[in-house]
Amino acid sequence: MTSLPRLTLVLGGARSGKSRYAEGLVAASGGGTYLATAEALDEEMRARIEEHRQRRASTWTTLEEPIDLAGALARADARRPLLIDCLTLWLGNVMLAGRNVDADCDALIAALGRRAAPVVAVSNEVGLGIVPDNALARAFRDAQGTLNQRVAQLADRVVLLTAGLPLVLKG
Amino acid sequence: MTSLPRLTLVLGGARSGKSRYAEGLVAASGGGTYLATAEALDEEMRARIEEHRQRRASTWTTLEEPIDLAGALARADARRPLLIDCLTLWLGNVMLAGRNVDADCDALIAALGRRAAPVVAVSNEVGLGIVPDNALARAFRDAQGTLNQRVAQLADRVVLLTAGLPLVLKG
Amino acid sequence: MTSLPRLTLVLGGARSGKSRYAEGLVAASGGGTYLATAEALDEEMRARIEEHRQRRASTWTTLEEPIDLAGALARADARRPLLIDCLTLWLGNVMLAGRNVDADCDALIAALGRRAAPVVAVSNEVGLGIVPDNALARAFRDAQGTLNQRVAQLADRVVLLTAGLPLVLKG
Repeated sequence: MTSLPRLTLVLGGARSGKSRYAEGLVAASGGGTYLATAEALDEEMRARIEEHRQRRASTWTTLEEPIDLAGALARADARRPLLIDCLTLWLGNVMLAGRNVDADCDALIAALGRRAAPVVAVSNEVGLGIVPDNALARAFRDAQGTLNQRVAQLADRVVLLTAGLPLVLKG
Repeated sequence: MTSLPRLTLVLGGARSGKSRYAEGLVAASGGGTYLATAEALDEEMRARIEEHRQRRASTWTTLEEPIDLAGALARADARRPLLIDCLTLWLGNVMLAGRNVDADCDALIAALGRRAAPVVAVSNEVGLGIVPDNALARAFRDAQGTLNQRVAQLADRVVLLTAGLPLVLKG
Repeated sequence: MTSLPRLTLVLGGARSGKSRYAEGLVAASGGGTYLATAEALDEEMRARIEEHRQRRASTWTTLEEPIDLAGALARADARRPLLIDCLTLWLGNVMLAGRNVDADCDALIAALGRRAAPVVAVSNEVGLGIVPDNALARAFRDAQGTLNQRVAQLADRVVLLTAGLPLVLKG
């Protein structure tokens, strides 16, 4: 079994293999808590969640928390690695709920700083296309980029996935 | 002349220099077969195809196949390197034709595995922007990401182009 | 104080930390001229410009030039480093003004070649999402990709920022 650093950020685009890679990191350290931020609001999302669930073995505990990620980090088993999948869905949930994005991101960063056991956080890189037409999408893109920067700064290791292949950006 | 590995995947965004780089790899090994997957349906696409054609020297043979890529791989000269430009246009053609994407991707992967002479495949990375509004674009993005992962896994060498500059992700 | 090469290109997506990184490069060499290409046409853009302005210390001189970038390069203090922030806003201004994009890009490349003092140019990578629906966005994406390739070819050093983390692509 390999040991994990305190905080690993796994970045990537859609279908880049980032969830699978992140799960592999935690699995190789003996498993842990899978913290799902998705809400199964439609069929497309339900299928994705089910696919992720079937990939994980019985050495995992699953928590579901779409909004209060800081609270979930505090409630989760403090001695086992924690996989957050993913910050992008969480950020979308926070914005759709009309919450204060800055305050919730501050609380998340503080909660990540307080965790003693390793955390692996999955997040999307969403800023490498054309500027979106609508203001909400632009606001989301900005918030996601800012959050990724903050988590990357705190992280011991940052890995970018492309076509399933990892590229170490930090650590 | 340099020698090519069995399978090279050249990834990149729009106008990243990926086609030019891939052509350079095959040209440096003495030329080969250029397998074009584009259909010249409009003026914009015709101009792109023409630009690509003018760049290639007479040491190239050209094949055009928008849909049956596995068949074209079987028909192409088995002793010369083959350049596929590109998997993204091919995938778009397959989806627009209403075909079974999974089956066609399986057939492509199998055909790539059977080739004895080197193959250089060009493909777009399309998953690093905001989630598209419409379901078809999301389905395309997922299919492209999945296909890129599968080809990358099979490939001996994977290179990501950014602003014309290569970054080796594998091999 | 560190010394800068003649031309550095800092690429990245939206909110990738590219402006901050580029400013850090010039600041570490003792400051210089900040050449802003943004036009404060709406509230969102005004807020961004103000944020950038507040980050810069008094060792900077500021020039604003939305269109005639080649002219501004010729007018700027020839003995001090110059930061161009950014080529993407400039290219958007050029296209919106209905100017000849190729000619303006040729003039920019020539002006960059004539500068004796170091230049750090910031630009967006915009080609890694799904093909945009409208032809103007596709034309912009193509023009941006082509410009990035040309500047990267001329540059001594090219750095890609992701989540605030630099990855050296050249130099």
